[in-house]
Amino acid sequence: MPIQNRQWRIRRKPDAEISKDHFDWVEEALPQPADGELLVRAIYLSIDPVQRYWLSDNATFGPPTEPGQVMPGRIWGRVEESRSPKFARGDLVAGLGGWQTHCLLAATEAEPVPDWPGVPLVAHTALFCMQALAAYFGLLEIGQPQAGETVVVSAAAGGVGSLVTQIARIKGCRVVAIAGSAEKRAWLCDELGADAAIDYHSPDFARELQAQCPAGIDVYYDNVGGDILDAALALINPHARIVSGGFISHYNESGPAHGLVNIPMLALKQARMEGFSCFEYIDRAGEAFKDIRQWYKEGKITYRAHIVQGLENAPDTLAGLFHGNNIGKGVIQVSAEE
Amino acid sequence: MPIQNRQWRIRRKPDAEISKDHFDWVEEALPQPADGELLVRAIYLSIDPVQRYWLSDNATFGPPTEPGQVMPGRIWGRVEESRSPKFARGDLVAGLGGWQTHCLLAATEAEPVPDWPGVPLVAHTALFCMQALAAYFGLLEIGQPQAGETVVVSAAAGGVGSLVTQIARIKGCRVVAIAGSAEKRAWLCDELGADAAIDYHSPDFARELQAQCPAGIDVYYDNVGGDILDAALALINPHARIVSGGFISHYNESGPAHGLVNIPMLALKQARMEGFSCFEYIDRAGEAFKDIRQWYKEGKITYRAHIVQGLENAPDTLAGLFHGNNIGKGVIQVSAEE
Repeated sequence: MPIQNRQWRIRRKPDAEISKDHFDWVEEALPQPADGELLVRAIYLSIDPVQRYWLSDNATFGPPTEPGQVMPGRIWGRVEESRSPKFARGDLVAGLGGWQTHCLLAATEAEPVPDWPGVPLVAHTALFCMQALAAYFGLLEIGQPQAGETVVVSAAAGGVGSLVTQIARIKGCRVVAIAGSAEKRAWLCDELGADAAIDYHSPDFARELQAQCPAGIDVYYDNVGGDILDAALALINPHARIVSGGFISHYNESGPAHGLVNIPMLALKQARMEGFSCFEYIDRAGEAFKDIRQWYKEGKITYRAHIVQGLENAPDTLAGLFHGNNIGKGVIQVSAEE
Repeated sequence: MPIQNRQWRIRRKPDAEISKDHFDWVEEALPQPADGELLVRAIYLSIDPVQRYWLSDNATFGPPTEPGQVMPGRIWGRVEESRSPKFARGDLVAGLGGWQTHCLLAATEAEPVPDWPGVPLVAHTALFCMQALAAYFGLLEIGQPQAGETVVVSAAAGGVGSLVTQIARIKGCRVVAIAGSAEKRAWLCDELGADAAIDYHSPDFARELQAQCPAGIDVYYDNVGGDILDAALALINPHARIVSGGFISHYNESGPAHGLVNIPMLALKQARMEGFSCFEYIDRAGEAFKDIRQWYKEGKITYRAHIVQGLENAPDTLAGLFHGNNIGKGVIQVSAEE
């Protein structure tokens, strides 16, 4: 039997919590690349909270997600067949290949994966990806942290948060990380250099946050919205910067969102809250990746990939992100690296 | 009987809605200026929503407001007695004189009122005041409106909002003004040049706002917070700017504030929401006043002062601001101009 292409297609859009029931497993013949296209075998598939957002009815950015389509997602893989002079069989590339074992990528849209000594392929999924751009530019351009300031980051053990934590430390800030399990908090403090890590499940969360921010909050990198944002707003210093990186706590909601009550603090503290899209910084990716690669080489930055084996586990892995199941970058290993 | 100094002193701080019951009427002997001080007779007293905020237990800026003190407020008045070479009897000055007929001002803190031909004294209270700085710098520096963009302003018939409306028009923007009475809306459209004016009491408010902003909202100058902010957030364009000028709708609240549900729009639209204080622009007041004076001379800017005669009406006038009783700048005339 010839090799089949296996896929997760969208069955229906989730109203609330996402699960396997929203996808169909499909097997079909391998696609044939046309002129200028590549057939790529996926090795790693990125699983990120934003993929849940792409499936929202009111999504204002992201790839289209109509029922019947292959679920979109970013992959790193190997060229199996090239009909472009830009790539040869065996080359490593990255692109929006989707939740499937094989995909066609236009050669103009496939990104070559640089062969950096000492940088394994999986490190690319965690350190040289869209989330790294979100962490780097969101923190440095929007947050503008100054040495000695207090930076708070939520979902700190996630793909974006773990990089924000480390970059803020490199910039000389006091870093207070918010995460939901003892294992995550230990990782944040012991390996990523956070000065403190707090459990958002704690009934005393707001008081603990205050205790760990004795000089107030200068930068809050917000990955979740909701109660945690409200608690952080209560503690902001004059001219604080709040980076609106995402609202994970809302992604699974269908009813009215959590009502924020401390937004008037922005006016009272002459503070700034600003959203941004990492896509707007794609042209400057080289700048970010150069710094991150240097810090990685110097041992100042590390990563952890939450690698789940097998494409069949993609829906459960995405659903699990909303239950705090992952530490570090969420990745599905679709096939072996060779 | 010699002239007495009449005052409103703070009796107790309001928990919720402010009223006359929070003040005591006191008459006492005129104070004697010490060396370097001026005795000033108040002519106009500024009555602004922010004065309610100053009385909040959790106020983070503003003059101190302990029970027993004269209620703070800005006055324009005439020097009755000078013990400083900087000022002479009869000079017009402005300063934080408080809710009283006579006050002592340090000559170093009294501001000379320039004698501009064609600019009556009451125009200074509306056009050359802190609220004018809030309107000018809040709109231009924080909001950065571009010609052709849509600017929405709430509390548009108030001291700040009426200037924001006019300056946005001067900058070539489509201006949608939000105000609560037919008279205010007529003034905004007919005299201040707003392209549309909407009643926030309307049960269809959100839909009307959308109808008047067919190209979305680029700048929202927010003077109120609450439901109106939520409705505006729902319509913001990518890279929109929200100027957090104040939260009038919260000032009288003691319970939990209105919960905002559309804050995630900031992340989704890469938008910015930023608070500021007009006090931070005091050093640049000359820049704002030069432009405003020029526009006033050219007939491009007008003002309306809601002048209430008699200091005894100060508490009711402040309370009335929260019931939408004023059009334009709130002013108490304490004594005749001569």
